Amino acid sequence: MKPEILSDLITRNDNKIIFLIMDGLGGLPMQPGGKTELEAARTPNLDQFVREGVTGLLDPVLPGITPGSGPGHLALFGYDPLEFLIGRGVLSALGVDFELTDKDVAARLNFCTLGEDGLVKDRRAGRIPTDLNEKLCQKIRQQIKLPPGVEFFLMTESEHRAVLVLRGEGLGGNINDTDPQQAGLAPREPVGEDPASQHTAELVKSFLQQVREILKDEHPANMFLARGFARFNPPPSMLERYGLKSAAIAQYPMYRGLARLVGMDVLPKPESYEAMWEQLKKHYDKYDFFFVHFKKTDSYGEDGNFQAKVKVIEQIDQWVGQLRELNPSVLAVTGDHSTPSFLKNHSWHPVPALLRSPSCRPDETTQFGEKYCLRGGLGRMSTKHLILVALANALRLKKFGA
Amino acid sequence: MKPEILSDLITRNDNKIIFLIMDGLGGLPMQPGGKTELEAARTPNLDQFVREGVTGLLDPVLPGITPGSGPGHLALFGYDPLEFLIGRGVLSALGVDFELTDKDVAARLNFCTLGEDGLVKDRRAGRIPTDLNEKLCQKIRQQIKLPPGVEFFLMTESEHRAVLVLRGEGLGGNINDTDPQQAGLAPREPVGEDPASQHTAELVKSFLQQVREILKDEHPANMFLARGFARFNPPPSMLERYGLKSAAIAQYPMYRGLARLVGMDVLPKPESYEAMWEQLKKHYDKYDFFFVHFKKTDSYGEDGNFQAKVKVIEQIDQWVGQLRELNPSVLAVTGDHSTPSFLKNHSWHPVPALLRSPSCRPDETTQFGEKYCLRGGLGRMSTKHLILVALANALRLKKFGA
Repeated sequence: MKPEILSDLITRNDNKIIFLIMDGLGGLPMQPGGKTELEAARTPNLDQFVREGVTGLLDPVLPGITPGSGPGHLALFGYDPLEFLIGRGVLSALGVDFELTDKDVAARLNFCTLGEDGLVKDRRAGRIPTDLNEKLCQKIRQQIKLPPGVEFFLMTESEHRAVLVLRGEGLGGNINDTDPQQAGLAPREPVGEDPASQHTAELVKSFLQQVREILKDEHPANMFLARGFARFNPPPSMLERYGLKSAAIAQYPMYRGLARLVGMDVLPKPESYEAMWEQLKKHYDKYDFFFVHFKKTDSYGEDGNFQAKVKVIEQIDQWVGQLRELNPSVLAVTGDHSTPSFLKNHSWHPVPALLRSPSCRPDETTQFGEKYCLRGGLGRMSTKHLILVALANALRLKKFGA
Repeated sequence: MKPEILSDLITRNDNKIIFLIMDGLGGLPMQPGGKTELEAARTPNLDQFVREGVTGLLDPVLPGITPGSGPGHLALFGYDPLEFLIGRGVLSALGVDFELTDKDVAARLNFCTLGEDGLVKDRRAGRIPTDLNEKLCQKIRQQIKLPPGVEFFLMTESEHRAVLVLRGEGLGGNINDTDPQQAGLAPREPVGEDPASQHTAELVKSFLQQVREILKDEHPANMFLARGFARFNPPPSMLERYGLKSAAIAQYPMYRGLARLVGMDVLPKPESYEAMWEQLKKHYDKYDFFFVHFKKTDSYGEDGNFQAKVKVIEQIDQWVGQLRELNPSVLAVTGDHSTPSFLKNHSWHPVPALLRSPSCRPDETTQFGEKYCLRGGLGRMSTKHLILVALANALRLKKFGA
């Protein structure tokens, strides 16, 4: 839907919308005939919301496409992930909770090992420990000099991974990776595709030459390979697009960053599920929309730990029960993608979803689970449309056309 | 589907298609656990067609989007309502059964009250009665003079609402509203965005100045505010797109107008359901496609009158029974949108649909109703694709690709 058509439909009121996201919620049985994690979990509170609402299955991108966290969340926020592409560098900066500005170009850096011949020996520098990464970044930060008017920010991610942000007027992000993608080759020179990016590529070249000099006596991490240069072009905010004053309650930096990308206020990092609940209650009157993010469903899925994923779903179900106290106009519970323990990875399977509001058309589902959602009244839907259904149920969308 | 791809698939035969549209058909229960209007209605004839056909749920625009009559019907006729936008003025002209030509620019007019200071006191002139509106329009028609080569048509809609159509060579519709949207402000001057619209804006300005003079001693309706200027750009007709010689049987002007918009022959206004049946029989051999429109399901929904909506569905069910006599190759029964009595308004909920033809793949639904349609063989579908399924079942679409 074109933004100008959508924006004519937006109306504002006091009805609250909560999106409760269990990362990687969708699952698979571990053996034929078995249950998925969500089907196996005892979820009395979610089941009660299912009985009062509608369920369905959501495709974050397209059937068959396995989404990363970026596209999965953009779709939940109503932004077509095939249209709003987030550069790797920008995603990495969001992932370390860095506050990007519109003067920033970001890139992902990997510490690597260069041989004396200048060729790459190890693209990941033997996966150095994170504390060595931090020590080296500190050393680099102290010695690098860039021309006046240009700032740089260098942040450790983990192991060999780091993030670079260049900040200045007129920078461009259309720069190739310097990572040659295989050992035995020299790092590639950064080249810009347009004048702004050419200027920026020169800065990158200077940065990398200085890093080479600073790290010349280090081993195995004696150089960076850079990937995914991207200028930060945030999409229109949730407030601009939907008239929703929005807040994020999330423990992990990537999701806090993704919320910030669409203009949400990101509440201070909560240390526990209890703290998340306290935050929600405390700020409930100040916002229209809350994005509440639970990470562990995904982590246990990636570990292949079926039982732990079941347990954490049950724990979140208890948390969900508290929402009756606030009784939001619209509650949606779903995930950004599936992460079946069986696959130990993100997957393409559609994601179970429930939506509860007073004006839902009832369906016959009574439990929250993939096979039940298949018969739900939301049907099978593109994740990016969930926000429209939520806005509609919150009576925040006017009629389209007369 | 691109028109050039579609047009290669079209083939013609004698198989008839009937779209029976109950306006605002979809509904909601009035209380949790209750039935929708359609589920509550006794519909033996529709149920029999369901058993012989397939059912499904249709989204007129997108999930969550509540359509007006224009977008809802365009979708039924197979035109993407997000692509074919109908301007407010054009829709108003269609709504008074005015036959637009491709030389026309239309606008919606509201009688208003201007104070002596030239500022708007009441944007709706106290909602004057329709007969006063007619009297004033008559007076204006007699006195207005526009340059040679330009015709105008001024039609009463109801209460303070009227429609203006300007007809001439080279007119343009990109003109702002003169309605300032709130009392206490002066009407805005009409300005055109391009040369054709600038020329037209001058005509509008002259028209409005003359109206001001003609109505100067009237009270409270002493001026017009204009909104929704739009040039009439009809889409390709049903005959061009689908090879369907099409006729509309509809009692209400808006729907007659929408049918005319896509090039249907609009049969004379039938005064009763019985007259609609007589028209259908009389013209059955002359057309390939019939759009038969019943309005009252929507009207009672908007009134919040659940029981009356149930009753009129039962009445239409009786009407439907007669169709066995004609036995069309394809019968589709659905609505242009939902109008739940519970909400007293159009809504975003998907619309129940049935399609019956000899080559349907049977599903297990045996009754016509929202919750049954959820399990039907049509699935959840965009309304704009219904015409393709109907054409296919009428064996009017060739294979795509070899």
